[in-house]
Amino acid sequence: MNARKFYEVTGIRLAAIASNIRYADRLDLVLIEIARGAAVAGVYTQNAFCAAPVLLAKQHLQTATSRYFLINTGNANAGTGAAGRDDAFRCCQALAELTEVQACSVLPFSTGVIGEPLPVDKIVFGLPEAIDKLSASNWLQAATGILTTDTRPKLASTRLELDGKSVTITGMAKGSGMIKPDMATMLAFVFTDAQIHQQLLEQKLAQAVSHSFNRITVDGDTSTNDSCMLAATGHSQMQIDAGNKSVNEKFDRALGQIFQELATGLIRDAEGATKFITINVRQGASTEECLQVAYTVAESPLVKTAFFASDPNWGRILAAVGRSGLKDLSLDAIAITLGDLALISNGELDPNYAEEKAQIEMDKQEITIDIKLARGRCSEMVWTSDLSHDYVKINAEYRT
Amino acid sequence: MNARKFYEVTGIRLAAIASNIRYADRLDLVLIEIARGAAVAGVYTQNAFCAAPVLLAKQHLQTATSRYFLINTGNANAGTGAAGRDDAFRCCQALAELTEVQACSVLPFSTGVIGEPLPVDKIVFGLPEAIDKLSASNWLQAATGILTTDTRPKLASTRLELDGKSVTITGMAKGSGMIKPDMATMLAFVFTDAQIHQQLLEQKLAQAVSHSFNRITVDGDTSTNDSCMLAATGHSQMQIDAGNKSVNEKFDRALGQIFQELATGLIRDAEGATKFITINVRQGASTEECLQVAYTVAESPLVKTAFFASDPNWGRILAAVGRSGLKDLSLDAIAITLGDLALISNGELDPNYAEEKAQIEMDKQEITIDIKLARGRCSEMVWTSDLSHDYVKINAEYRT
Repeated sequence: MNARKFYEVTGIRLAAIASNIRYADRLDLVLIEIARGAAVAGVYTQNAFCAAPVLLAKQHLQTATSRYFLINTGNANAGTGAAGRDDAFRCCQALAELTEVQACSVLPFSTGVIGEPLPVDKIVFGLPEAIDKLSASNWLQAATGILTTDTRPKLASTRLELDGKSVTITGMAKGSGMIKPDMATMLAFVFTDAQIHQQLLEQKLAQAVSHSFNRITVDGDTSTNDSCMLAATGHSQMQIDAGNKSVNEKFDRALGQIFQELATGLIRDAEGATKFITINVRQGASTEECLQVAYTVAESPLVKTAFFASDPNWGRILAAVGRSGLKDLSLDAIAITLGDLALISNGELDPNYAEEKAQIEMDKQEITIDIKLARGRCSEMVWTSDLSHDYVKINAEYRT
Repeated sequence: MNARKFYEVTGIRLAAIASNIRYADRLDLVLIEIARGAAVAGVYTQNAFCAAPVLLAKQHLQTATSRYFLINTGNANAGTGAAGRDDAFRCCQALAELTEVQACSVLPFSTGVIGEPLPVDKIVFGLPEAIDKLSASNWLQAATGILTTDTRPKLASTRLELDGKSVTITGMAKGSGMIKPDMATMLAFVFTDAQIHQQLLEQKLAQAVSHSFNRITVDGDTSTNDSCMLAATGHSQMQIDAGNKSVNEKFDRALGQIFQELATGLIRDAEGATKFITINVRQGASTEECLQVAYTVAESPLVKTAFFASDPNWGRILAAVGRSGLKDLSLDAIAITLGDLALISNGELDPNYAEEKAQIEMDKQEITIDIKLARGRCSEMVWTSDLSHDYVKINAEYRT
């Protein structure tokens, strides 16, 4: 992912300003304008206590066509009760008055500390400047403005030819801790100038998310504020519909790649991460059990600290698979490989295993673990990071 | 828990020696002799890949009355396949020959690094010395000899009068990381001189474990080697049976206290722990959902790092409750207290909440979180520790 190279999406303008929500002189308020007539789809956190802006964004998207995303960092406006919902609405209303749209055409998104009142005045004060700065080229600024503990912006962009027409997809995401987007995601905003009907757009979003943001975990903690939006402006004049199968599939592949690039970008920049780990679980009886094993390994503090230490302590992987709760799981059939190196074959240490070969694999920055369950035909892949001193440091000092 | 004060249990002799299994000059081999005619019960890890000694201990306990527990640290003899089972049996057999019992009267237990062959020769070489050292007073030595990353021995002991007869219960446990004893425990050995029939003893063990070792978590990682044994020598001549209700209940209370003391002792000495945290979940619809919420909070890396930092970041607790997967969980009814301080009432920040009061609670070494779900009449309690720099350090450097 090269955050500095991106294609603009016709019909989308962006701005990022510093409105001093939590820190001084840091981009913390992002405004994204979507041209009239676009289709917009969203998925949100499954956390039972979803934040005020999530509740409002869901409601507004059902009520009207979205024209603006208003995103602030530094304050999640979560755990703030009815007052929090009022605060989020006041921000939407202020923007709606300035831009002469309905308040329900504005979708609010917040990320940052949970449980503190949203500084509405600071946000409202910043709106005229944000509107003034709206530009088709401000992608990097916007991708920077939505960050919290992330160390770098995540932008992904592609341009493809479909039936002789050029179509662009460009998106951004943020998130570095409290990352296990359970059937949803951290903040991610993806845009295309393709023309896609609402219902199809929703399907495409669900599909893309399930194989990207829903396959990553940093710490197993699902946020209260996760949201992922996909908007199609239609300005390329290229209609995507299920009827034109080859075009539709080509678009889906490109969209899926953008989502995976953003999702894996979050893991590469996870809090304190020094390793990027791919966990493949194969030959499972169901998708669910593959994911159960993959997440148990991915979220094991002992596996994660072993990766941090580059220690080929494969016993911890084996123990995590064993405790993942699968019924009648037989050790005798299990096979585990680390990169190209067989660790476990038929439930025992592979005869060709050698600690020094394992060390070479563990010293790599990108590590792939392959776990064969030998009890079915399903496969799943999950991405995760290691557990380092810096993860503890970042999260122990988060509010100081 | 005062590890230096304990009562001997008539019918039990113990020895601990240094046999250089992994480190030089460190007590790493423990032998416990149980008088003829004792009843012995055991529960073991639910990890699907349980270790060779666990498989053998289960089998031996079903075959014959146990006379010896043979426990080594430094090597878990897990993930070692058929060779590992042979190795464990060879140790049992060697001891059986020296003590003139059947091999199946010896139960083997191992804890330490997973996946390395058991150094059978070192263990067998140490056996004569261990037998020679057997003594009724060696409790502290034995409790020290079973430790791995623990920083101190855990012994718990009580003596009670039952119908004018004196009955003793004394036990030991080890475990500091890879601790979430799923329906079982890390290594724990508890002895009484009460006389208890096998079936009743098994019931008592199951009951005591479910409210002690099965209510603790350090890192959510269930070991491959967890075992908890309870032996009743009968040497006090005091028969415990369900018929004598008051005696039976008094014994159960004392036994339950010993188990809880050992279990919470593991948490107090958890890897890198600086805090001891009790999580109560009340008014749940079922035991299962209370435990689901309690463990989600207890194992959240974000909650644990906040405790380490003494940061009253209650938003992380709220987010963890919200992602714990309970259906139709309503935020509006939730109440959360930290010690005596109300954090959340009716789903919102309590009007009397003040950060400085929360800070006083968080600065304590012993912290209690109370979570009221307001959807039923079940309650559960779980104990856990915080996630510190030292946890990462200990587990990153474990094999170096």
